Amino acid sequence: MSNTVTPWEVKGKIDYDKLIEQFGTQKIDEPLIKEISDLTGGKLHTMLRRGIFFSHRDLNLILKDYSDGKNFFLYTGRAPSLGMHIGHLIPFVFTKWLQDVFKVNVYIEVTDDEKFMRNPDYSLDQTMQWSIENILDIIAVGFDPDRTFIFQDTEYIKNMYPVSIKIAKKLNFSEVRATFGFDNSSNIGIIFYPALQIAPTMFEKRRCLIPAGIDQDPYWRLQRDIAESLGYYKAAQIHSKFLPPLTGPEGKMSSSSPESAIYLSDDPKTVRKKIMKYAFSGGQATAELQRKLGADLSVDVPYQWLYYFFEEDDEKIKKIGEEYSTGRILTGEIKEYLADKLNKFLEEHRSRREEAKELIKEFKYEGKLAKEMWSKTIV
Amino acid sequence: MSNTVTPWEVKGKIDYDKLIEQFGTQKIDEPLIKEISDLTGGKLHTMLRRGIFFSHRDLNLILKDYSDGKNFFLYTGRAPSLGMHIGHLIPFVFTKWLQDVFKVNVYIEVTDDEKFMRNPDYSLDQTMQWSIENILDIIAVGFDPDRTFIFQDTEYIKNMYPVSIKIAKKLNFSEVRATFGFDNSSNIGIIFYPALQIAPTMFEKRRCLIPAGIDQDPYWRLQRDIAESLGYYKAAQIHSKFLPPLTGPEGKMSSSSPESAIYLSDDPKTVRKKIMKYAFSGGQATAELQRKLGADLSVDVPYQWLYYFFEEDDEKIKKIGEEYSTGRILTGEIKEYLADKLNKFLEEHRSRREEAKELIKEFKYEGKLAKEMWSKTIV
Repeated sequence: MSNTVTPWEVKGKIDYDKLIEQFGTQKIDEPLIKEISDLTGGKLHTMLRRGIFFSHRDLNLILKDYSDGKNFFLYTGRAPSLGMHIGHLIPFVFTKWLQDVFKVNVYIEVTDDEKFMRNPDYSLDQTMQWSIENILDIIAVGFDPDRTFIFQDTEYIKNMYPVSIKIAKKLNFSEVRATFGFDNSSNIGIIFYPALQIAPTMFEKRRCLIPAGIDQDPYWRLQRDIAESLGYYKAAQIHSKFLPPLTGPEGKMSSSSPESAIYLSDDPKTVRKKIMKYAFSGGQATAELQRKLGADLSVDVPYQWLYYFFEEDDEKIKKIGEEYSTGRILTGEIKEYLADKLNKFLEEHRSRREEAKELIKEFKYEGKLAKEMWSKTIV
Repeated sequence: MSNTVTPWEVKGKIDYDKLIEQFGTQKIDEPLIKEISDLTGGKLHTMLRRGIFFSHRDLNLILKDYSDGKNFFLYTGRAPSLGMHIGHLIPFVFTKWLQDVFKVNVYIEVTDDEKFMRNPDYSLDQTMQWSIENILDIIAVGFDPDRTFIFQDTEYIKNMYPVSIKIAKKLNFSEVRATFGFDNSSNIGIIFYPALQIAPTMFEKRRCLIPAGIDQDPYWRLQRDIAESLGYYKAAQIHSKFLPPLTGPEGKMSSSSPESAIYLSDDPKTVRKKIMKYAFSGGQATAELQRKLGADLSVDVPYQWLYYFFEEDDEKIKKIGEEYSTGRILTGEIKEYLADKLNKFLEEHRSRREEAKELIKEFKYEGKLAKEMWSKTIV
């Protein structure tokens, strides 16, 4: 079984237990889940209950700081793109839930600079425009406008430049090269960028928790190497598995193959068509065989999307799993079910996205946290 | 004859004609000097008349743009340090003169970020503090507060970040490594810095003229490689020779050996003592020999300082040269003369430096050009 998980490439079938071992992270085990449940009054997000968020670093310390009243903050980000797909939402949906239950600040870095410098074909005007579009999708997830600061690097650079150059001074080319996949032909802007990615972990003198795909972990190891020498905490992380691409159970969704993903802007017809046509099925080739043998849930993408994201009802997903794996449900039926769920989700999302246009000023400049952030320099 | 002239090291006896050949720059010849004289109504700064500014790139194009009414602008800078010495003033004094005669804008970049990132021992607080101190010395040179913008990188970063990352995207690690003397152990902040050094050459859509020591030329070659692809002009330059260190005619003054330099803060007694004790003399070992053989002006530091900088009167310097080289003046006399000149210069400088404390706001934020610069983003 061959697979690759690096921050810039995810391919093959992933053995997540092995990844925990390889990366040296901690498994989110039953006692830890119970601790979260105790602290949140019994609330547990689907993505925790079902183990989509499955690995961590220092999550136990985050919970301890929360219990002790020291509190913590959340940080996530987005490299802006022309359109966001369903997979991009996972860290935001989960971060929003963490904010809801713990009532903590969230910082969301939108890296218009990085996206521009990383891609020869993109202009800065483009990546700045995409930032605004993506921010609307992020706001639509439902963050608290007074506890969330969404910023574009090109706009907030002055306030975070001092801490960024302190970080930069601690990291040399050899160190970032391996982690970020740079070489001598990498441009000098993208080489500096890791400092700007690390900077928000130092926006408060509290512990920072980063919800992200497990593939992002190597980036944060650099932060953990230097944070304490700058008087800050090592960033804690909570890692997710990958929502499989529509087209098959391996790798992760990619913007370069549009049939592998459902975009937040896809209309109901497109969604249905993509699922019917491309969604990789674990069901059998004929209805007859399916009724006899049932589906292989471990490779069935529609089932996994429901399990990971769109069917939050534990009873229902259990029933679907049983009936589908034993052949009582056919592939077409589960695809229809997913298409309905997805279209309902997207319809609601787009309605909140419309409302977000009125809220963007709050998140970027005028909300309680945003105002505070614009009034200070991070050193 | 062994010598080295790179942006980070100047040592040995320098053959300036050879340097023009090596660097591929142009000599400032008589016709060019005449052209300047014609444009300035016959005014020529000592440093031009005496060939301290001796080499250039595209100065002819600058003069043409000036004649055509397209105009040009000046750019120079300073890596802040605990104290500035006499040698540091040369580009500023000459830039100020160019501003006076051509009535053009001057941009002065104070690289508090670079100085911090370049030196393991310095804190950002220190380099920011030194910036303010150095800016006072720069203002004391006499720039026009409405045509001059002095800025610290950490303060102005947001306004120049877009153009800086466009520059950064055009330069890869291999390209800057050789020019700036980086290697794999260089930190990622200092690797990005060349983009910030180049950015001010694009503050206007006009040709930029940079007065600087010839050792800085390699930096600007990078700018010239990429400027046109970004829609800007190749930076023109006017290069100076080095004011020799007090202690001998080779290399350049260094802050790491305080006896090699006169600091702007040195009191009259210290100045006199340093000159008497350390100034390298081309005179003979005894008064008797000096009267008989005369001094070797080509290695005599007090004479060269007078020639380069402190004796602006052409008749007087000619007379001093003749009398000293033929033995009618003794070493002690010329040292006394220099000490008097220097102390007078420093006294006036420090008085203007006091006045600069009232002016610093104009140059950084409130003068005509400063205001304009703060109101725009360079893209």
